[in-house]
Amino acid sequence: MKPVAVDAMGGDKAPGEIVAGARQASEAHGVPVVLFGAPDAVAAAEPGGLEVVPCAEVIEMHDDPGVSVRRKKDASVLRAAEAVRDGRASAMVSAGNTGGAMASALLRIGRIRGVHRPAIATPIPVPGSLPTVLLDAGANAECQPAWLVQFAQLGAVYARVRYGIEEPRVGLLSVGEEATKGTGLVKEVHALLAEPAWRERSGGSFVGNVEGRDVMTGEVDVVVTDGFTGNIVLKTLEGGMRFIERALLDAMTSTEELRAAFEVLWPAVLPLVTDLDPDSYGGAMLLGVDGVCIISHGSSSATAIVNALDVAREMVAGDLVGALRSAVSA
Amino acid sequence: MKPVAVDAMGGDKAPGEIVAGARQASEAHGVPVVLFGAPDAVAAAEPGGLEVVPCAEVIEMHDDPGVSVRRKKDASVLRAAEAVRDGRASAMVSAGNTGGAMASALLRIGRIRGVHRPAIATPIPVPGSLPTVLLDAGANAECQPAWLVQFAQLGAVYARVRYGIEEPRVGLLSVGEEATKGTGLVKEVHALLAEPAWRERSGGSFVGNVEGRDVMTGEVDVVVTDGFTGNIVLKTLEGGMRFIERALLDAMTSTEELRAAFEVLWPAVLPLVTDLDPDSYGGAMLLGVDGVCIISHGSSSATAIVNALDVAREMVAGDLVGALRSAVSA
Repeated sequence: MKPVAVDAMGGDKAPGEIVAGARQASEAHGVPVVLFGAPDAVAAAEPGGLEVVPCAEVIEMHDDPGVSVRRKKDASVLRAAEAVRDGRASAMVSAGNTGGAMASALLRIGRIRGVHRPAIATPIPVPGSLPTVLLDAGANAECQPAWLVQFAQLGAVYARVRYGIEEPRVGLLSVGEEATKGTGLVKEVHALLAEPAWRERSGGSFVGNVEGRDVMTGEVDVVVTDGFTGNIVLKTLEGGMRFIERALLDAMTSTEELRAAFEVLWPAVLPLVTDLDPDSYGGAMLLGVDGVCIISHGSSSATAIVNALDVAREMVAGDLVGALRSAVSA
Repeated sequence: MKPVAVDAMGGDKAPGEIVAGARQASEAHGVPVVLFGAPDAVAAAEPGGLEVVPCAEVIEMHDDPGVSVRRKKDASVLRAAEAVRDGRASAMVSAGNTGGAMASALLRIGRIRGVHRPAIATPIPVPGSLPTVLLDAGANAECQPAWLVQFAQLGAVYARVRYGIEEPRVGLLSVGEEATKGTGLVKEVHALLAEPAWRERSGGSFVGNVEGRDVMTGEVDVVVTDGFTGNIVLKTLEGGMRFIERALLDAMTSTEELRAAFEVLWPAVLPLVTDLDPDSYGGAMLLGVDGVCIISHGSSSATAIVNALDVAREMVAGDLVGALRSAVSA
């Protein structure tokens, strides 16, 4: 397998944690990796024997994605996308500016033929069950009905290839179970998803509308929504979970006696905390571009990058892109 | 003060828990209450000395709100709204069908002059801080810019009257802090809220866009959004919190040893669990109708009803409706 192109400069903890993760994935998991970034900065982060493609520029977290992909021709994330386009890399991973990674993949790798708009698919942890795939988690703030129908197809294929779910249950996010609930967009999409057409090639089933409370349950495998709502759901959950974890931890360690009791409980709680950690999931997948493109959380640690690289390898091996192509081709 | 009209028949645990809560609020807290419901059912729930206005019908949880408010003229929630309209009650509380309660209040009590659309304002618990007021939490799935600007005014007034915040910080829910992020609606509302006009009479300040992760922090007092997004945020948080609580509890009590340690920690954790319990907040307020109208959670317990009645009394005493009237009048 061709190496996975890693944007060594993208992310709040780049290049240190990114390079450390890439090296670990290569040395301990045997994932082939090629790093893209400023040679000095990458060298200082000790890349071991990994190949480094020198790039003079970086799309920073605060950069405007549209402007920077045009101006920063030698940006690490753009170069990584070019490597996928040119067949020198099998996939790309970036924890940098989300818009920058999206624009790089779109401009350099391009869309799968027939795809209206690529969508960001994010696994939502459901401890004790497989994650729920939420899409679009932020690529398209405003969507047309046909795009959402296609998100259902892309999401169903992804849930099958990544989690081995034979017939993924797809739900449409709304404010009530009834087909009459929600915005005009949602009602229209509901009617389209109720038709058998979209399912034939994607292999999913439509369970109807689901509500916010269903996202973190094992009742549905794929939740389809527009990128505005999806991004808000994702960040609300992230914020809420982090808040509760911190508040509980503070309450449970406020005295010596409590801390002693907490130490007994910690090993039992740890798996749950790990399950809820976004770093455990390796990041979001940009579905609909003609290559495997993983956009990891800006706060990604080395562990997150290791997980992202494992997922990248698995999705290349499982031919995710081929499966997506057959699902959307006319 | 005139009694608060309680829909004794509304809610998953009606009339038992509703009547129990009403009686407790009356006997222990001195809140004047009048119950609306089927005489036999209410009598069986032991209303003590509370006045009962007999009603022959109930808008059930699964009823279509629009249809039932027209057909069920003697529904308990409609009668409660009529009592507010006629000045026989100072406020109304219902834990029943949300759409039914909204429609009853709208049709019988009517809007405050100048209000485009009433909105549901729900307090989101922020342990260690005052709750964040989220609106619209579900009354209007599709909104026009002017409605959202008015939600900012209604929300600011509510945060001031209910929580004593002198200059409530109002944020607009979006997918990024920049004014350029979000849907067309959000961008338009951002520009309108950045103008001083809306603040003059409502007393709020605009902190700009906020993201999903900011909802459960003390960084903002009021979060404004459309009713589709707001309802999904609310239910996502409810579902996520309940899920985490249950998963943690299961993990922490899976063996004898763990259970013993957990019993030490429980008193430290309990205040947090109580803070996060929607029953602690007494329900949502329908802001913009010409009377105090509280719509409690369908799962409301007696405690939730006691809290709702305390809030109702406080909002009548603090003249919430008068303050809302001055904020929106032209």
